[in-house]
Amino acid sequence: MSELTIWTLDWVPEMPRGFVRDLRLRWACEEAGLSYAVRTIAFDDRETNHLEDQPFGQVPYLKEGGVEIFESGAGLLHLARKSDKLMPRDPVGEAETLQWTIAALNSIEMVSVPWWFLKMSGDANNPLTPWMDKRLGQLEKVLSAQEWLAAGRFTVADLLMADVLRVSDVRAFGNRPATEAYVKRATARPSFKKAQADQLAHFKVADRKRAAASQK
Amino acid sequence: MSELTIWTLDWVPEMPRGFVRDLRLRWACEEAGLSYAVRTIAFDDRETNHLEDQPFGQVPYLKEGGVEIFESGAGLLHLARKSDKLMPRDPVGEAETLQWTIAALNSIEMVSVPWWFLKMSGDANNPLTPWMDKRLGQLEKVLSAQEWLAAGRFTVADLLMADVLRVSDVRAFGNRPATEAYVKRATARPSFKKAQADQLAHFKVADRKRAAASQK
Repeated sequence: MSELTIWTLDWVPEMPRGFVRDLRLRWACEEAGLSYAVRTIAFDDRETNHLEDQPFGQVPYLKEGGVEIFESGAGLLHLARKSDKLMPRDPVGEAETLQWTIAALNSIEMVSVPWWFLKMSGDANNPLTPWMDKRLGQLEKVLSAQEWLAAGRFTVADLLMADVLRVSDVRAFGNRPATEAYVKRATARPSFKKAQADQLAHFKVADRKRAAASQK
Repeated sequence: MSELTIWTLDWVPEMPRGFVRDLRLRWACEEAGLSYAVRTIAFDDRETNHLEDQPFGQVPYLKEGGVEIFESGAGLLHLARKSDKLMPRDPVGEAETLQWTIAALNSIEMVSVPWWFLKMSGDANNPLTPWMDKRLGQLEKVLSAQEWLAAGRFTVADLLMADVLRVSDVRAFGNRPATEAYVKRATARPSFKKAQADQLAHFKVADRKRAAASQK
């Protein structure tokens, strides 16, 4: 079998560390017990140095033999085919997992990322706040009634939704105890902790390399 | 085999007609030659009358025997499993189709829908315009070099991407000839035309029913 490789940046500044989306793929591989390598592209010219692999200039992307796949959500669904730990194989459980994976991307993150972007831009009267409030309120109701989103157990949908929700500004938005408990439950998993520690270590090594290079 | 049913609204005002997302599922069924029924929930209390089927109060959703699935993107991937007309079966073609399906949802629509929402809110200096410009520019480069997004032929990724891009305000954004030709090419397909005509006819019948009911 050809090696599964997660491609990410060689270095990032302090702020996004622990949140770069290669973490989603690392986490999924850890949950599924899939071995993988991590390779990197240079941060400095990231907007143009890998457009052949990712036309939006982003990370992560996966390679495995002749298969290449970008978009972290697509990478997760690709990995989910390899292990029923990520996605059940019965038609009902599979449909539930798929719908909640897409909901994380297109019903929650489609609101939370632009909302966060406007918040970062310093817009005090963030025009996306009512939409954010509505969607996160609807999700809070769902999470008040169940421990995990699909199939009565942890799936790749939870991995993705928890990653969308654990962003600190999103986490601090409103009083949503069921959602907060859900984020804590998901990020307490050993596979998340290992993925996060590995990403932080990866960037720490990069700090030392950059410091050494700058002193040459 | 149990019947495939697309659930949508019984009526909508003039503006969203031809764009309600049941069209994505109708279009996919037409491309794949899958037979399907259309059933409806009431427009008037749509925010609360189908939360058990769709926790965000939206349409469409699919039912097929005991399987239920919401999120149009998830419904499309579910339908794509049924026909290689929607998604090739070779690993490379499948990965390409999956990545571009997710890119339509999470790299393009995640920008275009909030941008459109702020535009509709009358924000003259739309703060999402630079992001929109960047992403649509990146996509224009891709579409300048190829006829379809994945596997060298029309797939469910094109169906979804074209549906995201054909929104009139998005279509009018900037000068993007390759994208415009792509939208024209996709929407010239007989399956799109039939799906759109069927949706328009569905709401036209609803107009007559509402008019009759209001005269009782």
